[in-house]
Amino acid sequence: MSGCGIFEKYDDFRTKNLIRGGRFSVIYRLFGDEAAARRAAEDIRVEQTVEFPYRALPDGTIRDEVTGRIESFDEEKEGTYLAEISFADETAAGELTQFLNVAFGNISIKRGIQIAGFIPGEGILSLCPGPRFGVSGIRKLTGVAERPMIFSALKPMGLSSADLAGLAWKLAEGGVDVIKDDHGLTNQVFAPFEERVACCAEAVREANARFGRSAIYVPNVTAPAGLVMKRARKALECGAGGLLIAPGIAGFGAMLELAASDMDLPVFAHPALMGSYAINRDGIEPAALFGTLMRIFGADVTIFPNHGGRFPLTKEECLGIARACREKLGNLGSIFPSPAGGIEFSNIAELVGNYGNDFLLLAGGGLFTCGEDLVSNCNKFHDEVLKASSNLI
Amino acid sequence: MSGCGIFEKYDDFRTKNLIRGGRFSVIYRLFGDEAAARRAAEDIRVEQTVEFPYRALPDGTIRDEVTGRIESFDEEKEGTYLAEISFADETAAGELTQFLNVAFGNISIKRGIQIAGFIPGEGILSLCPGPRFGVSGIRKLTGVAERPMIFSALKPMGLSSADLAGLAWKLAEGGVDVIKDDHGLTNQVFAPFEERVACCAEAVREANARFGRSAIYVPNVTAPAGLVMKRARKALECGAGGLLIAPGIAGFGAMLELAASDMDLPVFAHPALMGSYAINRDGIEPAALFGTLMRIFGADVTIFPNHGGRFPLTKEECLGIARACREKLGNLGSIFPSPAGGIEFSNIAELVGNYGNDFLLLAGGGLFTCGEDLVSNCNKFHDEVLKASSNLI
Repeated sequence: MSGCGIFEKYDDFRTKNLIRGGRFSVIYRLFGDEAAARRAAEDIRVEQTVEFPYRALPDGTIRDEVTGRIESFDEEKEGTYLAEISFADETAAGELTQFLNVAFGNISIKRGIQIAGFIPGEGILSLCPGPRFGVSGIRKLTGVAERPMIFSALKPMGLSSADLAGLAWKLAEGGVDVIKDDHGLTNQVFAPFEERVACCAEAVREANARFGRSAIYVPNVTAPAGLVMKRARKALECGAGGLLIAPGIAGFGAMLELAASDMDLPVFAHPALMGSYAINRDGIEPAALFGTLMRIFGADVTIFPNHGGRFPLTKEECLGIARACREKLGNLGSIFPSPAGGIEFSNIAELVGNYGNDFLLLAGGGLFTCGEDLVSNCNKFHDEVLKASSNLI
Repeated sequence: MSGCGIFEKYDDFRTKNLIRGGRFSVIYRLFGDEAAARRAAEDIRVEQTVEFPYRALPDGTIRDEVTGRIESFDEEKEGTYLAEISFADETAAGELTQFLNVAFGNISIKRGIQIAGFIPGEGILSLCPGPRFGVSGIRKLTGVAERPMIFSALKPMGLSSADLAGLAWKLAEGGVDVIKDDHGLTNQVFAPFEERVACCAEAVREANARFGRSAIYVPNVTAPAGLVMKRARKALECGAGGLLIAPGIAGFGAMLELAASDMDLPVFAHPALMGSYAINRDGIEPAALFGTLMRIFGADVTIFPNHGGRFPLTKEECLGIARACREKLGNLGSIFPSPAGGIEFSNIAELVGNYGNDFLLLAGGGLFTCGEDLVSNCNKFHDEVLKASSNLI
């Protein structure tokens, strides 16, 4: 008998009857020779579920059903293997945070393992609150039917709420579709949250009315746990058109709560603090992290660092994120990829060529510095996006 | 004039007057040749604050005070440089989540940068809720005056609440000081949260009374955002002696909320999902992550993967974590390091030799499988800890 007699009272029949058969899978990329990769796959299915010496598990359901199951194991290229490991839905307990833990909790601390993809299955998908807007909902909200959308950020930190509102006004006047807070603006004394959000929301509303625009303002609600929902409600009250959150900082669960709330505002996910997962081999592939996972956790837009700018993601990785935003994932709608970082006037045509029409072009510094007047800069960006996108059609 | 005329209305005098002079620092390890490392340091101080092209910033306070400041830059060894960069307290806005964002938000997505240490300064330290128990508080709670404490986990997933409570009883009977849920136990149908916590807390209470022990039970409250505090309150009601949370999954802010609440229970931090920061060069040094940062965010105990077991941290890294738990950090008390993973009967003496008396020895599988009877196994561990610790004295 295994388990050293410790589990003599364990009722296998009960455990067996509690398992309904639904499963989810994770694709792991395993580095090393075949023997090492096979050991890693065996290790993952145990470490991520029962976290107990396999030989000492009681016979029966815990060993056969509660531990993960290796569904496939294939060589990808020399020294790299792909294993699909499936897990009983019951291991995730109806919680997307625990789904994340089963997928990568302890093994994030082991070498030679990268998540290459998530296959959530019906049980996990039924927990997903969104995307409630996604591509079609955000297009409706902003009245932009087909072209890529122009997205910019209010900054730098240190400006007053009135100065930031002044920038918001000019961005809306110039034709920017979505205007967000810089993700570093939270509640600094220079422009405290409530004051800033009230001023900027009003500026965008008035500029929309004056210039016939439909821009939306997206304040940053990344904050300590108890404050995220409070700030989001305040933002809604002020007339925000969306909410920005960095789940790496505020927690994935906080983003989920926003997406599942009654506030009915699109959720914009920012990648801050998540780089260590994305840029290291022992981590999570960018498409799985910034694409699939953000979609599962309710984001309508996922911001990520574009290739060729000041961040190290490759073009293939960025296009992979865009694909993961769109590809079939149960009944979840498509979300907007939003490449950012180093977006300049000069690379708009290339961006549209790469991403097609369904993306948010997030221009910060490049938009502010390509000419003497911010409104003209926005007009230039706007015209170039129109041109590039009609070339596409 | 910089800023292309965009900031013509900017009131530098106002911004200047809002800065009070308090600062915090982060030590960055920069990889590459000296020129690249200097460029990285310049980049960090801008990217992490104003996130704006430096040449286009308005002259004055934003450029001089709101961006970070390079306090020192030294070669550590060939190809590795250490830079201390300080930031105005105002950039963190009185929020530890934003402190984290300033320290590592966007640059987590860049290569060649590792956080080697945090120097929080008075302003940031004044935001820290704890540790409210730390080493002395937890020793008082459990009545263990001097020796290392024995810590174990209830598992495997798949057992019923009654079975887990049975294990908890035996662990308490055998002399385990702290008994936690496995971090993968959340609200699975096998042992739902409320039922499990009620059963296990009762088992530990009764075993304490019967065998004259003072063991505490520490349930896992890692959960989607809205549920963490609810579960914690339920745990308190049931008689839990501490709370386990994985801030990598539930969010650092959620751990902070537990630590700052009126519940007055010690907080145990679990490292799940944080491995990508700790095991990769482009990340956060284990001592800074599992030591300093957990202490800043309110943990009383920090669990981390011990060297020599199934995880890749080195002995130096593990001892660094233990040092970071104890070293002077303003007025914050010392917290308990808790090495875990591969803790066996055979390496207890070595552990005590390495960590001294002030640590929690987290034994899971090794404790369950080193003999036929769990109570005897615990007794064996207990005796060995006593022996090793008196050798130390």
